[in-house]
Amino acid sequence: MRLPDAADILEAHERINHLIHRTPVLTSRQLNKITDCRLFFKCENFQKVGAFKFRGASNAVLSLSQEQKRKGVVTHSSGNHAAALALAASMNGIKSFIVMPETAPGVKKNAVKDYGAEITFCKPTLKAREETCRIIMDREGATLIHPYDNFDVICGQGTASLELLQEVPALDIVVAPIGGGGLMSGTSTLIKGINKKIKVIGAEPRNADDAFRSFKSGILTPSVNPLTIADGLLTSLSELTFAIIRKNVDDIFTVSEESIIQSMRLVWERMKIIIEPSSATVLASVIENPDFFRNKNTGLILSGGNVDLGRLPF
Amino acid sequence: MRLPDAADILEAHERINHLIHRTPVLTSRQLNKITDCRLFFKCENFQKVGAFKFRGASNAVLSLSQEQKRKGVVTHSSGNHAAALALAASMNGIKSFIVMPETAPGVKKNAVKDYGAEITFCKPTLKAREETCRIIMDREGATLIHPYDNFDVICGQGTASLELLQEVPALDIVVAPIGGGGLMSGTSTLIKGINKKIKVIGAEPRNADDAFRSFKSGILTPSVNPLTIADGLLTSLSELTFAIIRKNVDDIFTVSEESIIQSMRLVWERMKIIIEPSSATVLASVIENPDFFRNKNTGLILSGGNVDLGRLPF
Repeated sequence: MRLPDAADILEAHERINHLIHRTPVLTSRQLNKITDCRLFFKCENFQKVGAFKFRGASNAVLSLSQEQKRKGVVTHSSGNHAAALALAASMNGIKSFIVMPETAPGVKKNAVKDYGAEITFCKPTLKAREETCRIIMDREGATLIHPYDNFDVICGQGTASLELLQEVPALDIVVAPIGGGGLMSGTSTLIKGINKKIKVIGAEPRNADDAFRSFKSGILTPSVNPLTIADGLLTSLSELTFAIIRKNVDDIFTVSEESIIQSMRLVWERMKIIIEPSSATVLASVIENPDFFRNKNTGLILSGGNVDLGRLPF
Repeated sequence: MRLPDAADILEAHERINHLIHRTPVLTSRQLNKITDCRLFFKCENFQKVGAFKFRGASNAVLSLSQEQKRKGVVTHSSGNHAAALALAASMNGIKSFIVMPETAPGVKKNAVKDYGAEITFCKPTLKAREETCRIIMDREGATLIHPYDNFDVICGQGTASLELLQEVPALDIVVAPIGGGGLMSGTSTLIKGINKKIKVIGAEPRNADDAFRSFKSGILTPSVNPLTIADGLLTSLSELTFAIIRKNVDDIFTVSEESIIQSMRLVWERMKIIIEPSSATVLASVIENPDFFRNKNTGLILSGGNVDLGRLPF
């Protein structure tokens, strides 16, 4: 199993640079004051499809062979990866087949439909998703682009921290959310490959803490029916993302549902930008661990901004 | 009664430039597609205190005499002007006294308190506000900085469109919300002073349409107990703002409560930024008048982003 390195991510960035938005890095004096540290928010909520997932999907699609491109791509996803793959495929004239749980937020279902994908709904279990995917692969010959257990996807996700580091080289710490570990794998690979002194921290909901438990025990331990408002972080690590995270990540901080909601509200109110609960875990980890972050230059990856406004927690 | 001209606004910009944020001008391909026109959003929701009002308040405070600065400033406001004056005053070492209606949103009350102002609450009527203000002026010798019926405030508000025009010179139309008319007065003075060919349109809630009725009849006609979700636009024009608007504004479009809410939701969902209902009137005016805006380069002033997240309309 080859793990990606920083050079792979630099290559991915060249490959996808013409497709992606270079998202802004925002600061907030009010949030610096509240947290007593200097925060640099990499705003992937402003990325195409409203999430960093467009980076990985674009890199995966552009890395296909001509034959693979002709037959199309398929994936299962709780939402943002689905929209990202649908858009990346259609921007490159490629068919996409998306398997989604029936329970996905309406705003995410609509986005995928708008990007021209063929959607198949299934029960909200990993087993149902994988089986439905398999049926479509057999029928269409489409290539599976897994949301995170995929080398090219991971390299694409790492390009967000590349841009962050280009803009703010003097970072002490970088924090990214952990769900399936694709973003964290790309982030940690890039950061440690460029500057080993920068600490890389994962932020994970305490209610879906498979990465934390796996990281501490050294044994890959998937979550069983996790329940968190951070609906992008319900998935568990794969062998690949676990191997990368064990190698590169300094620590994983788990956060409560209350501090996820509080952090999301703080960002909305103070920064006037919309982030989804999964994104809020990074600020929550700062707020729950003030001593660790005090006075540090901290980069926070805001992973996305796709929220169902009809179901807000406040 | 001297009316301001574009040179006054250029001077104001030089005066306040070191205090204000140069807010971004954002675009959205999705909203361009929905409206069939090219929209340029001047994002005053990212201004200090979360609203354009900081521009006018800063210009007014910096235009005071030394003697006036020593005695402090006073105002009555439904919220954003209050926060703006409190911050502009404190940044310049000046005392501020703020008269607020008891009914103002909690988030706005807290902001004013945080900026170090002395708050006096009153009943939510213009009469109660003015009387309370008068008492404080008599007691403290403080200078009244009216939210919009003030030459220097108007010139400060006009600096937002100056920056918009610097960034996007080829505009066909500029739309700004109308409440008391301060923003519209500054906007229209600057735009018409620089390029008479650009159409200047006011956006007003149909439920608080005093400017529309005054503009059409030629007779200043204040609103009586208007009720709209656009809580920044409840106030009525003054003699000064009416005179400026009659001279410079091409037309006023009124918009329904439904389209204000729909437009606010569109901006939140598609652009991932928080705007308050008053700001949403400008996009609502585009959506309600598709023929007028079709294919036009349209500048929209997003006036602010201070929303009480506990009382959302969706």
